[in-house]
Amino acid sequence: MKNLFLAISVLIALTSCTNINPTTANVVAINKTDSTTIKHLFNTALTNGQCYQMLDVLSNDIGGRLSGSLEAQQAVEWGEKLMKDLNFDKVWLQPVMVPHWVRGEKEEAYFTSNNEKVNVPICALGGSIATPEKGIEGEVIEVQSLKEAEGLGEKLRGKIVFYNRPFDHTFIQTFKAYGGCADQRYSGAKVAGKFGALGVIVRSMTHNIDDYPHTGAMSYGNLKDSEKTPTAAISTRAAEQLSKSLKENPNLKFYFKQSCKTLPDAPSFNVIGELTGSKFPDRFITVGGHLDSWDIGDGAHDDGAGVVQSIEVLRLFQLNNIKPKHTIRVVLFMNEENGLRGGKKYAEEAKKNNEIHIAALESDSGGHTPRGFSFDANNKHHELFLSWKPLLAPYGLHDIKKGGSGADIGPLKSETISLFGYKPDSQRYFDYHHAATDTFDKVHKRELELGAASMSALVYLLDTYLQ
Amino acid sequence: MKNLFLAISVLIALTSCTNINPTTANVVAINKTDSTTIKHLFNTALTNGQCYQMLDVLSNDIGGRLSGSLEAQQAVEWGEKLMKDLNFDKVWLQPVMVPHWVRGEKEEAYFTSNNEKVNVPICALGGSIATPEKGIEGEVIEVQSLKEAEGLGEKLRGKIVFYNRPFDHTFIQTFKAYGGCADQRYSGAKVAGKFGALGVIVRSMTHNIDDYPHTGAMSYGNLKDSEKTPTAAISTRAAEQLSKSLKENPNLKFYFKQSCKTLPDAPSFNVIGELTGSKFPDRFITVGGHLDSWDIGDGAHDDGAGVVQSIEVLRLFQLNNIKPKHTIRVVLFMNEENGLRGGKKYAEEAKKNNEIHIAALESDSGGHTPRGFSFDANNKHHELFLSWKPLLAPYGLHDIKKGGSGADIGPLKSETISLFGYKPDSQRYFDYHHAATDTFDKVHKRELELGAASMSALVYLLDTYLQ
Repeated sequence: MKNLFLAISVLIALTSCTNINPTTANVVAINKTDSTTIKHLFNTALTNGQCYQMLDVLSNDIGGRLSGSLEAQQAVEWGEKLMKDLNFDKVWLQPVMVPHWVRGEKEEAYFTSNNEKVNVPICALGGSIATPEKGIEGEVIEVQSLKEAEGLGEKLRGKIVFYNRPFDHTFIQTFKAYGGCADQRYSGAKVAGKFGALGVIVRSMTHNIDDYPHTGAMSYGNLKDSEKTPTAAISTRAAEQLSKSLKENPNLKFYFKQSCKTLPDAPSFNVIGELTGSKFPDRFITVGGHLDSWDIGDGAHDDGAGVVQSIEVLRLFQLNNIKPKHTIRVVLFMNEENGLRGGKKYAEEAKKNNEIHIAALESDSGGHTPRGFSFDANNKHHELFLSWKPLLAPYGLHDIKKGGSGADIGPLKSETISLFGYKPDSQRYFDYHHAATDTFDKVHKRELELGAASMSALVYLLDTYLQ
Repeated sequence: MKNLFLAISVLIALTSCTNINPTTANVVAINKTDSTTIKHLFNTALTNGQCYQMLDVLSNDIGGRLSGSLEAQQAVEWGEKLMKDLNFDKVWLQPVMVPHWVRGEKEEAYFTSNNEKVNVPICALGGSIATPEKGIEGEVIEVQSLKEAEGLGEKLRGKIVFYNRPFDHTFIQTFKAYGGCADQRYSGAKVAGKFGALGVIVRSMTHNIDDYPHTGAMSYGNLKDSEKTPTAAISTRAAEQLSKSLKENPNLKFYFKQSCKTLPDAPSFNVIGELTGSKFPDRFITVGGHLDSWDIGDGAHDDGAGVVQSIEVLRLFQLNNIKPKHTIRVVLFMNEENGLRGGKKYAEEAKKNNEIHIAALESDSGGHTPRGFSFDANNKHHELFLSWKPLLAPYGLHDIKKGGSGADIGPLKSETISLFGYKPDSQRYFDYHHAATDTFDKVHKRELELGAASMSALVYLLDTYLQ
């Protein structure tokens, strides 16, 4: 009996040695159990991963899945069935009403300069109204910013306002270049409409000079219906052409036609699955991406990648027989692109049900090769998270730093939760973002798998070291 | 006059303050001049870069350029003209005799199992002999390693030996997976030939299961002519098929035919350009890639990327009006792929001319997004190089560590030189390496430019801090 006690004591000592619980300490020593577990998670993802095959189905069999569409509903059913087939402990649908904007017929646009008609690729921005059936035609005023448009004021009346500020190529992180331009797309019509513009055309959000218009959400803010103007994105090559032609012929006419419209809100769902925690079943770590996508591509990178990686995190736990202490939830959020209704609903329900969320991780920056995680958390855990760097660096995860997390998990923000964004390499992301080029063939199998493994490693560490 | 002296003294003090010379100290403080200069180099590469356009010409107008070929000669002339047009201080050709192996007609291969003929994609390995004109056909022995083949010994006689050890997917750095398999390709025939094998087939060196055979160098070692057997790479999908069929039908027959041959050595050149050093013109920092490539792709990643990035390093110095203290040489090495004659010749001439090379940097790992540099140097500079990490990290260059450098600069190795290898992300590299898929469209403009800027930053630091 004495020997048994001794054996148990040794076992407990060993266990506590390899499972340091630093809830009171901010910095923990790196231990071998962690590095071994993380290695196993990566090995499994790279040799027995399924996320690439899942993404093939979501991208190629279902395709673009804008909120309210038939494809969005198919994606909901796909996600639910997949997680049930994977035997997650619980799988359910969380109802949410979503905006229902439809593109209608393919848009048309051209401009006429020196009696020459130049066809240009455009696409309506999400949320825009249609043009009249015969389209609209007008002179163009090119501006570089909302401020410049504001300054022109009444001169915009009856004109097509053309926002043409390009990406700043000198940002190494391409999301910064995007952040420096996206106000034109989101708020361009709000400013131009105030002054009676006839329409709005916005340069596409990409570094490349190519023929693909990139759609995305726009808002009319508080404009009256009479002030709302049709708004579209134009490909960067056409934007360059138009700008050049305007210099030669400032009175040239631009024509475009689109038939998009906003229907009544539609019923939809967040899709949720979980592995129930062994020790703290009522404390949650959420990992997710958004299930909806724009309609003109397949939404493979944005955000099919995040969806399948999030499901894969739980699958990698299962395959490695990791029984999480906390409940790990995967949430496939609906309607990130044009409303964020899913993210808001999830946070609302969590609050209503008094759920304690200790951490959340979002993957919504594409499926490229891993670079790191940004975190948004109270300072208590700052040093703890940085102390994980040596565990993550062997997998190319060097950028572990304070910053944003993700749109869908943002509404969960509180004093007590730690929010994380998965950060893959960003160089190629805006080649595809919101464009017809966002298709499955642009996703690299190993890069996607490494991302899923990276996320599983972080969730493992959060489950191990947070309470 | 006194004021002038004072002004000069202050200027000198300021200069030495911002240009710390640590030849005696191993660790230096990061200074603002360095970070500003590096930022300028990146800005220039990303807004006024030319390496992508250079690579377009090299890949698409010239294409695959195996040593001794017409295309290799065209590439030499292209490189020389380009560097002269860029007004480098000196540009010249360094003669070198190279192996001249030619592929001949497109290879053919199939196997017959249960009376069904299955065509399979193969390509001759560089250096292999041809089959007889009518091809060879024989039973197949599948092995996983050279050791297994050695063990089978006389059982290999008259058989086609099929090396089929796949990449280990669990290596995060894909070069390690390659390193774990490439002995089959290089030495497979040497082992099989000793025991009278009829031919050798080697599984292609890639993670993917696809239809592209990957060529590469092989060697017969010291085998007698009578022991040399035709050797080819087989696509991974076909390798899997063949392996499966062998399990069902161990006596199936494999047929292949190739008409490659080795011609007499041919004259060729390393192409060299330099910016002459302002302070130490007879001390050299070399930056280079290899100009030759395999014949079945365009050699865009391997190593067109390294070639144009190396030229771009000097161009970025020019555009930023950086006058290097040491002479910075770009060397476009000939014949890395199947002989390394260019690298050897360059080192031989350097020695003969008593040139003092203080550092060399090679880019021969593809044109993907930057990850870091490995270095091979005496320990004196170890801490110095590591101290540059904070300067390089903002550009995604985190992996600064001791390791290999590059094949072409290897022959320069001595007690006094520091050798560096540029390390871009490796996930996609073996999708293309030595295959028909290595084409310009696989290269991403910003990733290539970031690589050139990364290299220019390192060369700037080497020029600033080494003597």
